[in-house]
Amino acid sequence: MPIYLRGLLLTSEQGQKSISSRKLADFVGVNPWQIRKDFSYFGDFGTRGVGYNVGKLTKQIKRILKLDVAQKAALVGVGNLGSAILAYPGFGIYGLNIDAAFDINPKKIGRKIKNITIENVSKLWTLKKRKIKLAVMAVPRQTAQETADALVKAGVKGILNFSPCHIAVPKKVKVITIDIGIDMACLPYYMPAS
Amino acid sequence: MPIYLRGLLLTSEQGQKSISSRKLADFVGVNPWQIRKDFSYFGDFGTRGVGYNVGKLTKQIKRILKLDVAQKAALVGVGNLGSAILAYPGFGIYGLNIDAAFDINPKKIGRKIKNITIENVSKLWTLKKRKIKLAVMAVPRQTAQETADALVKAGVKGILNFSPCHIAVPKKVKVITIDIGIDMACLPYYMPAS
Repeated sequence: MPIYLRGLLLTSEQGQKSISSRKLADFVGVNPWQIRKDFSYFGDFGTRGVGYNVGKLTKQIKRILKLDVAQKAALVGVGNLGSAILAYPGFGIYGLNIDAAFDINPKKIGRKIKNITIENVSKLWTLKKRKIKLAVMAVPRQTAQETADALVKAGVKGILNFSPCHIAVPKKVKVITIDIGIDMACLPYYMPAS
Repeated sequence: MPIYLRGLLLTSEQGQKSISSRKLADFVGVNPWQIRKDFSYFGDFGTRGVGYNVGKLTKQIKRILKLDVAQKAALVGVGNLGSAILAYPGFGIYGLNIDAAFDINPKKIGRKIKNITIENVSKLWTLKKRKIKLAVMAVPRQTAQETADALVKAGVKGILNFSPCHIAVPKKVKVITIDIGIDMACLPYYMPAS
């Protein structure tokens, strides 16, 4: 679903109002029949010969993914990767915005990046009253679990974790880990012997 | 497999020579029976009551994943994200090293980051004779496909793509896409209604 949403958002960016399953399939890299099957589950938005209504379909998928309301997120760890995440332009199209940033380094606390003032990581508990329920973690592996614990305590329900390790959280909290190293380490397996 | 490898590498970093399936399971976040099942496929390295031999198992998994030889990689796009990737410390444990970096911006070309001199992206073809078969792409979406085409032409067989879009490549080339925005966009779906 998120991959379809991305395809539809890019399509609408290009000014297209409708798209055929074949075109959308090429665009996102799946089979057209897979798209037709997936979309049929929640009522059909396609018209034979015309294709899918991009606007309607986008709205529907956004609602399913709970992206129909803007979501605020916090970043923890403003190192190399954290700074890049803060500058990353690709969250906005999904209605996601990083509204707060935290670091442990006194030299960084108080600095401003993209209109966001870096706060002391000891202030993570304030996320609760600020109603920030999403967080991105770009901290060293050694402090990842304690950071996650503090986030959970502050009422965060979804964590995007960039630390290369497994994070244990209560069941009601969802963690998605992006381990850049491990993804890279998967590539040689597919390479033909030279 | 890569997740197990990560777990084993961290275990060995902590000086442990053997590990039980239960401990490894906790560490990587899967069921112990899943580990026993997976490892039984390639001969059992575990001894009841003692656990798995960390060194032997690491070696075996590295061989399976073709990580038993050091692999050179190139980075294309030295913007915010690219710079963070260049500084990222998590590739080395898998024997992966970024040995070259390319950008299109004349102001960046010739600059040195971490002993790597940024080269003109027009020189991507030189990867062939330098025997670099892996690449990390951190370029804008608009230039992602042409960058991938140039990499494939230069003999690259594996691409880690950070552009938020699908990349079309010949079957013999493997692309793994890390779309930070889309992963973040998956989180609200799991959040309880507030």
